[in-house]
Amino acid sequence: MMNQIVQCVPNISEGRDLKKIEYITEPLKNQDRFKCISVEPDKDYHRSVITLIGDPQAMLVPLLEFFRRTLESIDMNNHKGEHARMGAVDVVPFIPISNVTIEACVDYAKQLGQLVSSSLNIPIFLYAKAAQMPSRINLPEIRKGEFEGMGDKIKDPDWKPDFGPQEMHKTFGVTAIGARIPLIAYNIDLNTTDEKVANSIAKAIRQSNGGFQYIQAGPVFLDQRNHVQVTMNILDFKKNPIYRIFETVRMEAKRYQVEVTGSEIVGLLPKDALLDSVKYYLNVEEIPYDKKMSMSQITQLAVKYLKLRDFDELKMIEANL
Amino acid sequence: MMNQIVQCVPNISEGRDLKKIEYITEPLKNQDRFKCISVEPDKDYHRSVITLIGDPQAMLVPLLEFFRRTLESIDMNNHKGEHARMGAVDVVPFIPISNVTIEACVDYAKQLGQLVSSSLNIPIFLYAKAAQMPSRINLPEIRKGEFEGMGDKIKDPDWKPDFGPQEMHKTFGVTAIGARIPLIAYNIDLNTTDEKVANSIAKAIRQSNGGFQYIQAGPVFLDQRNHVQVTMNILDFKKNPIYRIFETVRMEAKRYQVEVTGSEIVGLLPKDALLDSVKYYLNVEEIPYDKKMSMSQITQLAVKYLKLRDFDELKMIEANL
Repeated sequence: MMNQIVQCVPNISEGRDLKKIEYITEPLKNQDRFKCISVEPDKDYHRSVITLIGDPQAMLVPLLEFFRRTLESIDMNNHKGEHARMGAVDVVPFIPISNVTIEACVDYAKQLGQLVSSSLNIPIFLYAKAAQMPSRINLPEIRKGEFEGMGDKIKDPDWKPDFGPQEMHKTFGVTAIGARIPLIAYNIDLNTTDEKVANSIAKAIRQSNGGFQYIQAGPVFLDQRNHVQVTMNILDFKKNPIYRIFETVRMEAKRYQVEVTGSEIVGLLPKDALLDSVKYYLNVEEIPYDKKMSMSQITQLAVKYLKLRDFDELKMIEANL
Repeated sequence: MMNQIVQCVPNISEGRDLKKIEYITEPLKNQDRFKCISVEPDKDYHRSVITLIGDPQAMLVPLLEFFRRTLESIDMNNHKGEHARMGAVDVVPFIPISNVTIEACVDYAKQLGQLVSSSLNIPIFLYAKAAQMPSRINLPEIRKGEFEGMGDKIKDPDWKPDFGPQEMHKTFGVTAIGARIPLIAYNIDLNTTDEKVANSIAKAIRQSNGGFQYIQAGPVFLDQRNHVQVTMNILDFKKNPIYRIFETVRMEAKRYQVEVTGSEIVGLLPKDALLDSVKYYLNVEEIPYDKKMSMSQITQLAVKYLKLRDFDELKMIEANL
């Protein structure tokens, strides 16, 4: 059996005290069957994003110890930051990467919820694909009212937690645990400073104006680089592959005599998302597609065809294992 | 004030007796302020589609006489055809073409419904943009049960007609009158006989698989011509313009070493739908766009850039006035 690989991205409500963050995340490091590939504290948000990649089964017990240390270290009554939040561990999504279904990720979310609530008496909401009712699919709906409002909200029968007591933890708050498919943060560079052009192109491709269904997009002017971008989230790269968006933006840009000069992936993406686009261009050029393409070959071809800048192999989730 | 122009497309449940069809449609012909540009009987459907173009205000009284003659000529108890139907006049949509809003078309639909029901005692349902409740937006939901089931259905409080008696007319049945934006039936030719290729491309562009929001598309093999097409409806050409779909199909086809060899408009389309695409290509080529382009210039350029076949100026609704 092939190894199941998920990405798991716990968010904690501490972004300033690096010693505390180190203590809390320590149980997630130096593991055999998964890697902690980044811990990113943000001072303004007063929040840290932790990225784990590997075997979800092996993550469960270390995640429990991580929850225990967070409970010990963070008192939400003293927490103020720019990002909305409702718990010391605020949210934990499981994201399928390879050899694992979204359903299996839902199951791991439930296992973790059960484990944490029964050991630490913390209320848990299941969200996104793990949601047990429609009102819990969107995280902002669960989080509405934040830590300060959660004491009352949780007593409403509609907001009974999926696991744990129907009472907010006085210092920890509550946590959302769930499963979702990977999204890709992707930006396409245009050789113009006219934000209107980027905005028109964003409208052509994004769902909210009738474009592709899994694309959220908008214009942005890059001060340092002195050009505009179409900046976007690709919410489902299997339905709306990167190459299709890249080529559609290129096609629309022609209308304004503007060229696509590059593109960039923000954060990580699954290898398959790039491989699928590389396969498109290889077939266009009538080069037979070789199934055994190495990570570095995929990188080289993706950089060539999608004009990726600031890209290297390690941007592929699987390259970090 | 510019003249309001709508397209109005009454459908009657008679597709075989040409004399009867001539008698029924006669009041719609030789009018000053609108034209009857086609009457298309279909024997299998046992149904005729009539297309009027022009001033909606001037259509109302002739349409009442058309309803009166239909009531006099058609007994639905003797009607059998392949197309679902619920009345002798089955459906009457008003479609905005120029200098008229969809809201104004809704108003004309209501005026006609009021006029017909009060003069002829026929029950009228308002549908599409004119619908007064969500269950009446989609015509098939109203028509469910057809003529044979309508006697019972109409007694259900949920199916009380918007105008007229809450009782089906014994020989005429019921009519749906409404307003909708124009849709374009558009097909793109591929130089392959492989329906799988057309199907994969249809999936890339259509709403139901995550593609463009206003596109319904599927594959079809053309026996006579011996190649496949991506056949589609463009439900909103302002949000999903023709050139964008044409270019996206061309881009996707490259993956299979297939070329787009032509495309065709089925029925009529508003001039603006072509003009918008022509403007795209002119700007791509850095030719300044001339606002005063004639119908024949638009035709010539659309044929060139979109490889339109079997196309002439009269396919544009406005050219028929």
